[in-house]
Amino acid sequence: MSPPAPIDVDLVGVTDTSSVPVPDPLTVNGLPGWREKMTKIPLGVAAACSSDMFKSPACYTKPKAKNFDHLLSLEAKSRQASTLKGAARYLKNPGIISLGGGLPSAEYFPFESIDIKVPNPPGFSPEATQQFGAVLHAGKHDIRDGKSLYDLEIALNYGQATGSAQILRFATEHTEIIHNPPYSDWQCTMTSGSTYAWDTALRVLTERGDYILMEEYTFSSAAETAFPLGVKTIGVPIDAQGLIPEAMDEILSNWDEKARGARKPHVLYTIPTGQNPTGATQSAERRQAVYKVAQKHDIYIVEDEPYYFLQMQPYVGQGAAPPPPPANHDEFIKSLVPSFLSMDVDGRVCRLESFSKVIAPGSRVGWIVASEQMVERFVRTFEVSSQNPSGISQVVLYKLLDEHWGHTGYLDWLIHLRLEYTNRRDALLHSCEKHLPTEIAHWVAPAAGMFHWIEIDWKKHPGAAAGKSREEIEEAIFLSAVDNQVLLSCGSWFKADRSAVMDKMFFRATYAAASSEKIDEAIARFAKCLRDQFSL
Amino acid sequence: MSPPAPIDVDLVGVTDTSSVPVPDPLTVNGLPGWREKMTKIPLGVAAACSSDMFKSPACYTKPKAKNFDHLLSLEAKSRQASTLKGAARYLKNPGIISLGGGLPSAEYFPFESIDIKVPNPPGFSPEATQQFGAVLHAGKHDIRDGKSLYDLEIALNYGQATGSAQILRFATEHTEIIHNPPYSDWQCTMTSGSTYAWDTALRVLTERGDYILMEEYTFSSAAETAFPLGVKTIGVPIDAQGLIPEAMDEILSNWDEKARGARKPHVLYTIPTGQNPTGATQSAERRQAVYKVAQKHDIYIVEDEPYYFLQMQPYVGQGAAPPPPPANHDEFIKSLVPSFLSMDVDGRVCRLESFSKVIAPGSRVGWIVASEQMVERFVRTFEVSSQNPSGISQVVLYKLLDEHWGHTGYLDWLIHLRLEYTNRRDALLHSCEKHLPTEIAHWVAPAAGMFHWIEIDWKKHPGAAAGKSREEIEEAIFLSAVDNQVLLSCGSWFKADRSAVMDKMFFRATYAAASSEKIDEAIARFAKCLRDQFSL
Repeated sequence: MSPPAPIDVDLVGVTDTSSVPVPDPLTVNGLPGWREKMTKIPLGVAAACSSDMFKSPACYTKPKAKNFDHLLSLEAKSRQASTLKGAARYLKNPGIISLGGGLPSAEYFPFESIDIKVPNPPGFSPEATQQFGAVLHAGKHDIRDGKSLYDLEIALNYGQATGSAQILRFATEHTEIIHNPPYSDWQCTMTSGSTYAWDTALRVLTERGDYILMEEYTFSSAAETAFPLGVKTIGVPIDAQGLIPEAMDEILSNWDEKARGARKPHVLYTIPTGQNPTGATQSAERRQAVYKVAQKHDIYIVEDEPYYFLQMQPYVGQGAAPPPPPANHDEFIKSLVPSFLSMDVDGRVCRLESFSKVIAPGSRVGWIVASEQMVERFVRTFEVSSQNPSGISQVVLYKLLDEHWGHTGYLDWLIHLRLEYTNRRDALLHSCEKHLPTEIAHWVAPAAGMFHWIEIDWKKHPGAAAGKSREEIEEAIFLSAVDNQVLLSCGSWFKADRSAVMDKMFFRATYAAASSEKIDEAIARFAKCLRDQFSL
Repeated sequence: MSPPAPIDVDLVGVTDTSSVPVPDPLTVNGLPGWREKMTKIPLGVAAACSSDMFKSPACYTKPKAKNFDHLLSLEAKSRQASTLKGAARYLKNPGIISLGGGLPSAEYFPFESIDIKVPNPPGFSPEATQQFGAVLHAGKHDIRDGKSLYDLEIALNYGQATGSAQILRFATEHTEIIHNPPYSDWQCTMTSGSTYAWDTALRVLTERGDYILMEEYTFSSAAETAFPLGVKTIGVPIDAQGLIPEAMDEILSNWDEKARGARKPHVLYTIPTGQNPTGATQSAERRQAVYKVAQKHDIYIVEDEPYYFLQMQPYVGQGAAPPPPPANHDEFIKSLVPSFLSMDVDGRVCRLESFSKVIAPGSRVGWIVASEQMVERFVRTFEVSSQNPSGISQVVLYKLLDEHWGHTGYLDWLIHLRLEYTNRRDALLHSCEKHLPTEIAHWVAPAAGMFHWIEIDWKKHPGAAAGKSREEIEEAIFLSAVDNQVLLSCGSWFKADRSAVMDKMFFRATYAAASSEKIDEAIARFAKCLRDQFSL
């Protein structure tokens, strides 16, 4: 016989919204009341779930996303639902005994409980947490015992590729509260981290021989993910606000298939906020303009947004009074630059979300937001690859984010990070202002992220007059810095197109990892090396 | 400038073995003494590591693996080391301040500690663990504080694609103790689970249009991983001992490239122990014969071994005295059928290891063992995809397996599982003997794994005489079972080649998930449905 038709994850548990009279958009304060009205969270082992269980009725008043079949790869188009998962539909029969699936019994999971010690808002510092932190407990049978909606019996067993319903609910609600996409059929799925999600996006969207668009300086690992797949990269010129939409339009309008030996690009990879390596943040207007170019040329946008919540307070320089922090959650949310997702009327954006910069990279848990069509193709890929993110990570994140902090506590934490990173950035900028020779070193204060991008006027280097190349001088400065005991990253390492000839020279410094004392010492060392190199 | 040459992970920390006089192979009892002599475990954030740090000198007395460049895919061949990771070499300079890498500071990880409650050998049951279990503690700065070799500062940050040194050491030692591969340059790398490792193996080894060999009935998700990559599957005939080497030789010897439209297969995917779905276990002789056919035709073997430690006590039937359990660790290890890895003189085996069936699927941590050349290609893929398994999972596994149980406690646990699964299997077989109509139902007692494969003589079905097809009768039996409130899996769901016409009919039942009472009830229901269907 043919295997039974698989469960359509996307149709499971759709909320009956007919009885809800006025669809208000979901807000952080409205959430507790909203949850009362919602479909119950599914609590079984490897229970099917989807964002449709958790979105508010306001979502369904919007038009649907466009169809992007024509942009899918052959690989993505040929993926089908898992044969074995299809049989799970019969598990709903009450009283059925399953000898079907090979799931291990929970009595063989050698973990009875996990306890984590975490911050109690507003005491977010490690010291406050050590003294006054909360200890959160996850037992093996907390669901059965009525103690929690999530437990180790579920988290330690196999799960759905979407991630568990418990953590997917949090991600879905967070997405609606922060981004509220302007089409109805958006969905989230958890991922085993954004790096993995980007690798999957390339598999879903591109074929060998394709070109993709990226900022001309970009996260080099993102380009290196594409190259072995036979996907080439075109760098779009950037300025202090990142991607220049006119430059993107020009590349696409003048694309010569024959000269390039490839079809016109149909994917843009961008880091819109606190871009790596340049630190640039695209303004709302800039994003709108880029989105219009994407519509004009039918470009699918992958926005990689690990630094979205590392948007900082405005930089006001030394001595000036620091601007007041956001007075409340609404003001904080309004202070954030709108995402591409929030303006995505077509459903042509896949947003890569990450906990790496705001919780911990070692969780290896992130999520994506895209149209139902796209998310379903990602989920089909995950099912026979990563399967799902670590259940141990998921239950730990759930305990912290959902059961303990809730959305309000999480926003408090994000505001805490905003102010911490503001301090770190300001320390670095003050050190740069204090030490660096401004005759040759120039920069723009970063508004978000972890990175400071310092331009060096290499043509003033004595070697330039003597005929040395930009590359040789960059190497000399880098090695001289290493000799002076400070490590920065060379700008050229981040070229999207490795063969591109660049006229300018940059170094990237991060303020994420070192203390302000160390940062000041490091910048002083770099300044000394620049003065030596440039004979200043 | 060009980025600095990347660190060669494979050369980091190679033990100087010249001073070790007599290379005895590593044993579980010799381990504590051996660790004293070893290279120190690297303890930094995202510290590079490799199995060469942890293998015993006995490994290096063996010849090296063959080179398998000619079997690598274009994708695998074009992978290069990460540009950014290359700069990490300068971090070894004492006194250098790094503003290079964008790693978040540990003060922003909102987890001060994790405690897990786990079994104390030999009290492995959930009840014993609740009463007498050990609570293991992982703090944020345990390394700095001299309390442990692993902590949350490391586990929660970015890591190497190999997995952390702490857990890689355990996997490497376990591999040497159990399998002791017969060539010198074998390595392990942790993976984000075996499903992901198999997806990666296909990317490393195959091109669109290729065929791979599998058992004619196989884990259907493994075949479904291959199909969207454009990789087709050939089912090799099997018997009660699994894969038939002569049949494999015949397929390969008679391969007609033109007729098939594809080059001769060069990859075998096999589940040698407790095969899914058939439950068959290849004997040592059978494996040797399969390996010889692989050598003859230059086939690379991927052995997927989640059920290796679900090898059970011999089945002796009801009433007979149960055979005594293994008297000690040596006897237990000797009772295990030798792996392909243990006979792999060429280095043509990639072994997929999993914690899913012996610890917990939700960890999403496994590892692979293969030659240095192959492991390096996998690691290059992981770096820009999964990155590494969850650090939270890794530290939890380390605490349990290495710090608390050690290898001896882990072997005790595996013996416990062996006896538990023996009881489960025996219960299922007793129920089958008690209920099933042996006129039409036949089986072989499985020696390993989770699955029982029941052949049904469908030609005796009244529908067969009336012209009904095998497929129609299988569907009728399956649906009748569902109507009788029991779920089994249809054999046809597991066909490696979906278009193959099978003459026999099977159903797969698992004894992993239900209690013996439930199993007995389920088999009684299935027996009733068979009697109804066959008018017995």
